[in-house]
Order: sequence, then C-alpha cells, then structure tokens
Amino acid sequence: MAKNLEFVLLLDCYGELLTERQREIAELYYNEDFSLSEIAQMQDITRQAVKDSLRHSEQMLLQTEQKLGMAERVRRMRNCLEQILDSCRTENISNITALAENGLRLL
Amino acid sequence: MAKNLEFVLLLDCYGELLTERQREIAELYYNEDFSLSEIAQMQDITRQAVKDSLRHSEQMLLQTEQKLGMAERVRRMRNCLEQILDSCRTENISNITALAENGLRLL
Repeated sequence: MAKNLEFVLLLDCYGELLTERQREIAELYYNEDFSLSEIAQMQDITRQAVKDSLRHSEQMLLQTEQKLGMAERVRRMRNCLEQILDSCRTENISNITALAENGLRLL
Repeated sequence: MAKNLEFVLLLDCYGELLTERQREIAELYYNEDFSLSEIAQMQDITRQAVKDSLRHSEQMLLQTEQKLGMAERVRRMRNCLEQILDSCRTENISNITALAENGLRLL
C-alpha cells in the first residue's frame, strides 16, 4: 500500500462520505503520515484492520471519483491558476486572459 | 418549486449519484427547461410523480453539497477566474497575482 498523493486530494474531496472511523484512519495515514503499525497502536486495533480499513476507504474514494470527477476538476483548476501565476511573472496579459477563459470553460 | 439556478450547478456536480430516471427528469427540468406537465407527458407518468422525483433529487443534491461542498468550491473558482479576467482588462498584474494566489489557497 503505497502512500499516494492522489488519495490526499480524494480524501479532501470525498472524505465526508466515509464513516468517522474510516476517515480518522485515512487522515492519520495520508495527512499526518503515520505508519500502519503506529495507527494500529493509536486505535487499539490490529495492523491488518488498519490495512483493511484503508483499502475499503480507497476503493470508495476511487469509485466516487469515477462517478463525480471532482478531484480531477480541482486538479485542473490548480494547474490553471499555477499557469496564470507563471504568466504573471512575465506579465503576459494575453496569455493570462486565454488561461482564465479556458479555465472558466473547463470548470 | 421554483427553477433555481443553484440546482443546475448541484446537478452538474452530483447528478451521477442520482438514479438514471431521477437524473433524466432533473436534467429535463433544470437544463432543458421543460415544465412539470411536459416532462410528465414525455415520461408517461403523472405530474405529481415528476414533482416527487424532483423533490427527492433536490434533497439528495442539497444533502451531498452539505457534506462535500464541491459546488461552493466550483462557485468560488468561477468567481476567482472572472475577477482575474476583469483585472486583465485593466492590465493589473499585481491584482491578478494576488487573486491567483488566493484562489490556490481556497481551492
């Protein structure tokens, strides 16, 4: 189970759809970077139970993203704003205009 | 049941969580602007059944937005990009930079 940056965003988008326990474990793992064993100790459950919980949560987050695609939308917007900031550095107004218009279309 | 622009965005964000039938009715009503009676005729159901389906869909969309807040996020981003376009017209680079940085923080 590789710690995947993708799940940080998915958890941010859809974490509220998990149970409180699942969300707690996923946040400890993805956002606070604890290991499986550390989380097992903190939650007083087995390492395998932590692993199972994470696997279920990940499946649920991926399925929701397949349906709704909101994480992809957030990623596109982040990319758009970062490109706008790049164009600010070179003061390229026509490029910024094109990026912002395109961003609005994609939103 | 007032046709509310808010539901167009909610339907865009979370429509895939509705059943196919619910989504079809909601899209005819919100996106294609048919009346309750017209949709009833098209779907061969009563006007009341259309109304009930829309009410259930609206409740579901609102509850999902309360949990996930993705429509609000899309709204904020749209607002941010529109303000950037305004600042492009006056070629105000420092304002665009501040707006894009703030947009990234809010994203």
